[in-house]
Amino acid sequence: MNRFEPNLRIPGPTSLPSPVRDAGARQMINHRGPEYAALQGRVLARLRAFFRTSNDVVVLTAAGTGGLEAAIVNHLSPGDRVLAVSVGTFGERFARIATTYGADVTRLTVTPGAAAEPGLLREALTGAEAFRAILLTHNETSTGLTNPVAELAAVARELAPDALLLVDAISGLGAVPFETDAWGLDVVVTGSQKSWMVPPGLTMLAVSGRAWKAQETATIPRFYFDLAAHRASAEKGQTPWTPAVGIMIQLDVALELMEREGAAAIFERHHAVAEATRAGLLALDFELFADPRFFSDTVTAARVPEGLDWKPFSAALRERGLVVAGGQGALTGRIFRIGHLGSVTLADILAAIGVLEEVSLAFGRPVEAGTAVAAAQRAALAVLGTTGPVPAGAR
Amino acid sequence: MNRFEPNLRIPGPTSLPSPVRDAGARQMINHRGPEYAALQGRVLARLRAFFRTSNDVVVLTAAGTGGLEAAIVNHLSPGDRVLAVSVGTFGERFARIATTYGADVTRLTVTPGAAAEPGLLREALTGAEAFRAILLTHNETSTGLTNPVAELAAVARELAPDALLLVDAISGLGAVPFETDAWGLDVVVTGSQKSWMVPPGLTMLAVSGRAWKAQETATIPRFYFDLAAHRASAEKGQTPWTPAVGIMIQLDVALELMEREGAAAIFERHHAVAEATRAGLLALDFELFADPRFFSDTVTAARVPEGLDWKPFSAALRERGLVVAGGQGALTGRIFRIGHLGSVTLADILAAIGVLEEVSLAFGRPVEAGTAVAAAQRAALAVLGTTGPVPAGAR
Repeated sequence: MNRFEPNLRIPGPTSLPSPVRDAGARQMINHRGPEYAALQGRVLARLRAFFRTSNDVVVLTAAGTGGLEAAIVNHLSPGDRVLAVSVGTFGERFARIATTYGADVTRLTVTPGAAAEPGLLREALTGAEAFRAILLTHNETSTGLTNPVAELAAVARELAPDALLLVDAISGLGAVPFETDAWGLDVVVTGSQKSWMVPPGLTMLAVSGRAWKAQETATIPRFYFDLAAHRASAEKGQTPWTPAVGIMIQLDVALELMEREGAAAIFERHHAVAEATRAGLLALDFELFADPRFFSDTVTAARVPEGLDWKPFSAALRERGLVVAGGQGALTGRIFRIGHLGSVTLADILAAIGVLEEVSLAFGRPVEAGTAVAAAQRAALAVLGTTGPVPAGAR
Repeated sequence: MNRFEPNLRIPGPTSLPSPVRDAGARQMINHRGPEYAALQGRVLARLRAFFRTSNDVVVLTAAGTGGLEAAIVNHLSPGDRVLAVSVGTFGERFARIATTYGADVTRLTVTPGAAAEPGLLREALTGAEAFRAILLTHNETSTGLTNPVAELAAVARELAPDALLLVDAISGLGAVPFETDAWGLDVVVTGSQKSWMVPPGLTMLAVSGRAWKAQETATIPRFYFDLAAHRASAEKGQTPWTPAVGIMIQLDVALELMEREGAAAIFERHHAVAEATRAGLLALDFELFADPRFFSDTVTAARVPEGLDWKPFSAALRERGLVVAGGQGALTGRIFRIGHLGSVTLADILAAIGVLEEVSLAFGRPVEAGTAVAAAQRAALAVLGTTGPVPAGAR
């Protein structure tokens, strides 16, 4: 059954709540005037709270990849030894950026679907020549898993105390528990189109005192992404180059919504819809791709079953208003991914599982109508602690 | 007298027309899906028409400064000789970017307010060792003048046939006549928040065959701003990193409005409001800053008169709903600037001149009520070729 608006279940851009959409229709303001300065001040303060940091937070006008580039070019010099802990496409991208700018990159990679386990990092660091930086991915969007960043950071702090910890937290921060300061992270990068419920175009970075210090001697050239220039302008409530004013206005509204909901409630909602997604997919006889110990609460990847042609199947989903993401690179056609972050609700997930159920039946897959939706609902309610009514037919 | 909405008379971000504001409230779409591909295709085709080029046009998620950086890092190698023709803050910024990335930059500068005259370029190129690139500013936002790019390009083509012509057209293209192909320009950069009537966050570049060729051997490292990666993705109707989908949706709508108005009408409107602005300011006894032979039709700079304190004066303008821009760098407090580009109408300019007249009177400046508004109106109508009614009191 169609919805009037597509059910955008990709891992970003995420659906915008109505107040954020309304904010997108506002008139432009002077980016050098007092109204913008107040807006930027509010946004930075609220971001700091969600990053759980007292460090500076900088907002750049760019995609998340631009934020990763900023993390590299501001803190490294050509030839610097870098350990890139990569568990998928986005970890690989982070490593490639470091290589592009002349870092001497050592990769620590795992089988797709596996996480970076602390033991692996311990092994890689033990007896190794010192690294200037360690690149970590918090949530790997391409395989649907969340690395144990707290534990990884602890190992790094123990065995490589001088290495900068540069963390891609683009698709997880704001949706799941995350501690920039308590975990001792130096640079943490996120993107507006993920948990923040805002269109793409802004990338936000928390920068530690150690990182600011490292910038003083880092020699990779930078201009557009020069964080020091942004810090200097921030003192006047400005940015060195014209910021994406419209998206900033939307981010201001979204952060107010997030503050009102509260971090704990946001995290619980994400865990509940993630559990619902996983239960629904399993009930539909899909195999989940990632190591179950590290399932992501923002995106779930499932294997395309043997014998199922993904293209017509996904087209049939789209016809019914469900937009999911395919696999990337070598995983194209082999997995599909369901995003459940940002403004996502249980209703969105029940609708998504419902469409998957309907199309699975249409494609002759061995499923029973109502079973998957019921499983999703039960899984969510198990998290939310409510014994809500499950449709009778689905028991 | 206040307006209900501020009269945003800065040289960008420019005011958004209602249909562009409405488009800002749209829901997100999948940036890897067919709807986005169609949107990007429409945008690129319409941009090509306004750039007057058959070259590839690339849209990057960044401020205009990011577009300038892309022009440098994709086409040069460290040590390359570059001639930077700079007539103000933005020409200087373009030169600084080239220096940052290791180019061997020779500056051709002029007194602020003067243009880059073709004779100066001829002199600089005659007998000079070959330059790999020449950096030109089309419209210098900081001083309110438009360089004669057609003539400058002709001199460059004659005396430095192998030099790439990299042009900052951020604040002029789309508002005044411009010919990418006929003038033989290699890279032309603009920004969404200027003539295009869209929020900031996108920078658009036309890239010639010669420029694509130069990229093959240019060794400055690049990743986020790698134009070749964007060209490859564009073949699938995509971008390599998540684009600013919301601003693209708005740009699509704005370009449709521009196509409907037509380039000739847009240029005439800009010339008329520019003439009105200049006439109004002169009637208010302000001295215009730029060389009159090169007045910009998108932004006008005027000197702050001896004895006038700019801060309280501009605050009084703001209280009455008029937002103008001050001077930048060494010109802070010495000039002010009025933007008249994008969605600007004669009504906006009459309102702006009216407020300037009112505040000038309040500050005891020697002006006569109605005179400046009348002068502005007459100047506009002289361009538009209509003998419309001028308020009787203003004759």
